[in-house]
Amino acid sequence: MHLKTLEWIPDSESGLVPGRIRMIDQTRLPTELAFIETSDVREVWTAIKTLQVRGAPAIGVAAAMGMVAAIQDVEAEDGHDLTLEIRKAGAYLRTSRPTAVNLFWAVDRMMSRAEQHADMAVADLKDMLAREAVTIGEEDAAMCRAIGMHGVSLLQDAASVLTHCNAGSLATARFGTALAPVYMAHEQGRDLHVFVDETRPLLQGARLTAWELMQEGVPTTLICDHTAGQVMREGNVDAVLVGADRIAGNGDSANKIGTYSLAVLARAHDIPFYVLAPTSTFDLATSTGGQIPIEQRDASEVTHGLGRQTAPEGVDVYAPAFDVTPARLITAIVCQHGIARPPYEESLKKYAALASLSEERV
Amino acid sequence: MHLKTLEWIPDSESGLVPGRIRMIDQTRLPTELAFIETSDVREVWTAIKTLQVRGAPAIGVAAAMGMVAAIQDVEAEDGHDLTLEIRKAGAYLRTSRPTAVNLFWAVDRMMSRAEQHADMAVADLKDMLAREAVTIGEEDAAMCRAIGMHGVSLLQDAASVLTHCNAGSLATARFGTALAPVYMAHEQGRDLHVFVDETRPLLQGARLTAWELMQEGVPTTLICDHTAGQVMREGNVDAVLVGADRIAGNGDSANKIGTYSLAVLARAHDIPFYVLAPTSTFDLATSTGGQIPIEQRDASEVTHGLGRQTAPEGVDVYAPAFDVTPARLITAIVCQHGIARPPYEESLKKYAALASLSEERV
Repeated sequence: MHLKTLEWIPDSESGLVPGRIRMIDQTRLPTELAFIETSDVREVWTAIKTLQVRGAPAIGVAAAMGMVAAIQDVEAEDGHDLTLEIRKAGAYLRTSRPTAVNLFWAVDRMMSRAEQHADMAVADLKDMLAREAVTIGEEDAAMCRAIGMHGVSLLQDAASVLTHCNAGSLATARFGTALAPVYMAHEQGRDLHVFVDETRPLLQGARLTAWELMQEGVPTTLICDHTAGQVMREGNVDAVLVGADRIAGNGDSANKIGTYSLAVLARAHDIPFYVLAPTSTFDLATSTGGQIPIEQRDASEVTHGLGRQTAPEGVDVYAPAFDVTPARLITAIVCQHGIARPPYEESLKKYAALASLSEERV
Repeated sequence: MHLKTLEWIPDSESGLVPGRIRMIDQTRLPTELAFIETSDVREVWTAIKTLQVRGAPAIGVAAAMGMVAAIQDVEAEDGHDLTLEIRKAGAYLRTSRPTAVNLFWAVDRMMSRAEQHADMAVADLKDMLAREAVTIGEEDAAMCRAIGMHGVSLLQDAASVLTHCNAGSLATARFGTALAPVYMAHEQGRDLHVFVDETRPLLQGARLTAWELMQEGVPTTLICDHTAGQVMREGNVDAVLVGADRIAGNGDSANKIGTYSLAVLARAHDIPFYVLAPTSTFDLATSTGGQIPIEQRDASEVTHGLGRQTAPEGVDVYAPAFDVTPARLITAIVCQHGIARPPYEESLKKYAALASLSEERV
């Protein structure tokens, strides 16, 4: 991608701090490309809270950079003193989206990094923490690239794919998860055409996925969610690519509502259905998808979702945030370490173990 | 229904003419219940054109009543003279929605009625034509009631159904087609719960179907279209009820885009899938659904459908107006004369023949 979802911009060439975060304001898309540039941790908090930055990995990077912004101007006595400030910033940023696991993970990583190096000089510790935040972003991009490389190997004969919601560059530091194979193919000079589900009620497909694919010059066609069956029937979909919020030990995968319907449709048309997600979404302690609680969204997202009331006052609405696609409908689960195939009880365990190994090496 | 989609209101008790049409302005729903009351044929033309009145049967009734409005104040020499005026009004109203077959049918019926009785006195002919227009509405309501009675016999063990788009009272003179069994059950004191697909892009489900069901006190839950699979998986749908725009000789049924996806999902969950439509939608000259041309809608309905731009400028959009559900996915086709079962080549022919017989009797 030529456009970066978010990045750290140092104020001078002499070091990473002081600096500021620059991120695309995703609430202004697709009609306007506007950036938020700030060194104020409260603005980062607001950006996460109001979905100006969204997608688990991107939120993690934003929070890490927000912590750096919070402490870079603090005149601390020593590293231990600074570490207290980092703790404060982390606790504050955690409150921006209390259900975002990746946010907690990034905050914890920054805090333990600070504690490990609390004996450093204040200036060095600030610089080290800035580097850590940037590294979190780089690791995420590398992980997405790896998912993309594995994914594209499954799509050698594909001309057109279909995706749901936004699991693309805008949700991560770069490349995305479900869209990573599309960008890898594009880098290799081969264009995959992408059908994009608009993804009601919040239209992440229409607003974000279609926008980022068009920015990159990838051939893109927007459809209403219920049109997926018709497009498949016409023989125009060679694979379905989706992300995941959480993957149970048996391979059952929770993702944006509508994913399950897509998986059933794909199976009925003999189209491979791929889930693409980093091992951090594997939740092997949860044995099946039935144990994943399903969050309900507010009715107003459906009835007033686009700035206008489009349903009767007081109508009952069923609006689950996501659904769970059973493993039997998933052709393969692609992570940064490879391609997991059924039976997922075994293959997911293998890739989770590989992930712990490579994390230990870091 | 306590609320009538459209009706003819005489100015006095002495006869049907002069009078006026009163119809719900469907473009103001669901936030406002407003009526159009007019004796001006140009306002009827505009109402049809701008979808203030919609649904094939309702348009037919509106056009017939519009023809009466057009001629009721004409000071004709004799019946033949008046018949020329009726012809003019019919030709004019035909231009309001040039693809609406039912509109042409109603206009033709009014014109041939006028010609048959051109020897009548002017006042009597006017009254007779007003009665014909009212009769068209009454016949439609009776036909919908018959569809509903046949349909409800299929739903004895059902607690909850799912429907798509609006094939309800608002699309007809009364009761609707797909929703008729729901209203018949309600009349019998038995409530069927209805899941309503919002039906992107124009949200007829959210705006119209949910509204009319709530008016009648039927338990209603609105869902985004892609949530249908999840609701089925949870075991909460006992039958799918949809209307049809056109049914081919082999039973393949064209209906609002998204119907095909629903049919595939219903089959995957072993849920019966019923198409409910009058025999006037049977197109036995077309042997299979493959021969039905699929109209494309304007991209702006998807990208700007709700008054705000929600997709990137210039994005490619695939927006078929309807899709064709193959006969193999349809459990039964319910018409006013009974329940057609596979093989549809035979059963549809039988009911079409019954329909011609009963029309001859009229």
